[in-house]
Amino acid sequence: MSLRTPLRLAARPALSPSFFTSRALATASTNTTADSNGTAIVLLNMGGPSTVPEVHGFLSRLFADGDLIPLGPLQKYLGPLIARRRTPQIEKQYAVIGGGSPIRKWSEYQAAEACKLLDKMHPATAPHKPYVAFRYAAPLTEDTFLQLQKDGIKRAVAFTQYPQYSCSTTGSSLNELWRLSKKFDKEGSIEWSVIDRWPTHPGLVEVFARHVEEKLQEYPEDVRDSVVLLFSAHSLPMSVVNRGDPYPQEVAATVHAVMTKLGFKNPYRLVWQSQVGPSPWLGAQTSKTVESYVKKGQTNLLLIPIAFTSDHIETLHELDLEIIHESGCEGIKRAESLNGDPGFIQALADIAKAHLEGDKRSSKQMSLRCPMCVSEKCEQQKKFFATGKHPE
Amino acid sequence: MSLRTPLRLAARPALSPSFFTSRALATASTNTTADSNGTAIVLLNMGGPSTVPEVHGFLSRLFADGDLIPLGPLQKYLGPLIARRRTPQIEKQYAVIGGGSPIRKWSEYQAAEACKLLDKMHPATAPHKPYVAFRYAAPLTEDTFLQLQKDGIKRAVAFTQYPQYSCSTTGSSLNELWRLSKKFDKEGSIEWSVIDRWPTHPGLVEVFARHVEEKLQEYPEDVRDSVVLLFSAHSLPMSVVNRGDPYPQEVAATVHAVMTKLGFKNPYRLVWQSQVGPSPWLGAQTSKTVESYVKKGQTNLLLIPIAFTSDHIETLHELDLEIIHESGCEGIKRAESLNGDPGFIQALADIAKAHLEGDKRSSKQMSLRCPMCVSEKCEQQKKFFATGKHPE
Repeated sequence: MSLRTPLRLAARPALSPSFFTSRALATASTNTTADSNGTAIVLLNMGGPSTVPEVHGFLSRLFADGDLIPLGPLQKYLGPLIARRRTPQIEKQYAVIGGGSPIRKWSEYQAAEACKLLDKMHPATAPHKPYVAFRYAAPLTEDTFLQLQKDGIKRAVAFTQYPQYSCSTTGSSLNELWRLSKKFDKEGSIEWSVIDRWPTHPGLVEVFARHVEEKLQEYPEDVRDSVVLLFSAHSLPMSVVNRGDPYPQEVAATVHAVMTKLGFKNPYRLVWQSQVGPSPWLGAQTSKTVESYVKKGQTNLLLIPIAFTSDHIETLHELDLEIIHESGCEGIKRAESLNGDPGFIQALADIAKAHLEGDKRSSKQMSLRCPMCVSEKCEQQKKFFATGKHPE
Repeated sequence: MSLRTPLRLAARPALSPSFFTSRALATASTNTTADSNGTAIVLLNMGGPSTVPEVHGFLSRLFADGDLIPLGPLQKYLGPLIARRRTPQIEKQYAVIGGGSPIRKWSEYQAAEACKLLDKMHPATAPHKPYVAFRYAAPLTEDTFLQLQKDGIKRAVAFTQYPQYSCSTTGSSLNELWRLSKKFDKEGSIEWSVIDRWPTHPGLVEVFARHVEEKLQEYPEDVRDSVVLLFSAHSLPMSVVNRGDPYPQEVAATVHAVMTKLGFKNPYRLVWQSQVGPSPWLGAQTSKTVESYVKKGQTNLLLIPIAFTSDHIETLHELDLEIIHESGCEGIKRAESLNGDPGFIQALADIAKAHLEGDKRSSKQMSLRCPMCVSEKCEQQKKFFATGKHPE
């Protein structure tokens, strides 16, 4: 799904595979873009159904993904069962929030606007071409991959839209990209690099802190500094946490960076939402936290979605309706998601520019498998993104 | 246990209770120290037995503490049983590491040296008098409290030596201080304030990063950047994590700050050690992590104790002997603890100076109980340290 038309269609990418091997080569590469076919900026995310009829397909793909929801060897039987059983309820939720998730709209807007900025900020790799690749909803990663090939793309940046890395989210998207590259591009005609995490990027932190400040203004001045800030992130099953997934650490780092920016002037907690099923997940739970504070008489609570950047069902339905509306407390509010905030778009462009200027295919951290990981897919995916090559 | 003799014994403290109510008053107060009896700097920690015969008493107190090890209504029966059963094994461990924990030696040294610096850096609240108050070993919090009274102390700073706050550790020490104040000082003749956390203080982060860099120098240059940094912190039971204890978030913040200082040039993970008993604890486990990486062929691992600052049984026995020595891998090493590092002592003095200059009895964060906390002791302790008064 190309949002803009390529300006040039030269055969070779601007950045050769050796681009990443040393800073000297990287610097050289940025001067050789005259006949470039440009750079695809591919925003990765889980996505969401844009319309109610897309809900079932979305859930089917979601419950089929063992990276996100590990159901064991019975995944291909259990996944469709659970998806079918949950569809009617989730369809209702999407109907209530306006007939679909706004995540596609926001992602396409963010990609297009960030690319416009990049063309000005980093002409050496222009034109920058915006793409969106969702894991479970249109535009699906596979369709976007085929579109990249159709558009003659030779150089692509996989830019995760999860600021904090989890094997369940960014890892799953990268496993999918690796699989598609192996299937459709064995010879490696598209050269990939990855922006795999950006939990404490100053631009990101600035927008989060600003959205908190803006919402705090809605409280009377005499209670403003005692409002409890509840940073809420999607939880993980403890099996994933105990495997050594880096996500809890990185989410905590985002929270600390935002609190530092805010001068620690309010009390706060990091809490975890959207637990499902009977197995243990990481807490404290967002919903129970709100209930308990209300019981203790603390009813000025500001919820801040800290691990997703655009609105989606977990903000618009779970936080806004199930938790905030149900509480009946006026003092319980939610900070705006980042969505189309110009400061956020600028942050995305800054992150991409720094990546394009650097000499790394991915972060050092991405090279390390989780301690208790036994997934061969993860191992091969990491090798592919580290070298840019499929094994012979 | 006073380490130095008070220089003056005037009746009134330098800082009146109103010191904390506004910055203006605080500023005024720092100019009125002529007849001051000085300021006690009381380092709080769990402590450890300095000699093998002290092990049983140490374990008895430890397993009696429901804030640290919640055993329910049977605590007073189960605690002594477990302590007695574990004593012989733990005695052996202390014998192996030299006949006792060095934590008292380091704590007394750190307190004394930081106070010397403070006298020069912040004469307005001098003399600064060093004390150590351990939760489970000599010098016990109760003995130190009585010593403060004997020494005529009117103004005391409770300075936790756990950089990251947990209700199990700093919370337990503060509960004990509150209990002692209620028992021995109902009228509040000692005015307390609290340094309750300092997870990302730049001085702390600098020493951690420097100790990592120093140990990395012991690896051959060609593997140095691929050594996996394993930041290891004492784990918590999931019941405490799910109650909303702030510790995991703050430990993660320390890790991120140290990695930022190191330029993210090595892959890393935050892992959790010292799990005991059958109930679920937060992972990934340090020992399992090391085993798994060794199996995967990654044998260059640098362990970094990130939640304790001085050496103790968990570094000298658990990490050095049970994990590193047992692995038989030359590439598995441990970063030095902070112990008597002059940069660390300077950091302690800087933190205390900033606290003495400020207008806060404690951090804003300390005012907030954990979401799922049901402890009345916690509630009353927080009120006491927020107001400096016991209820009538």
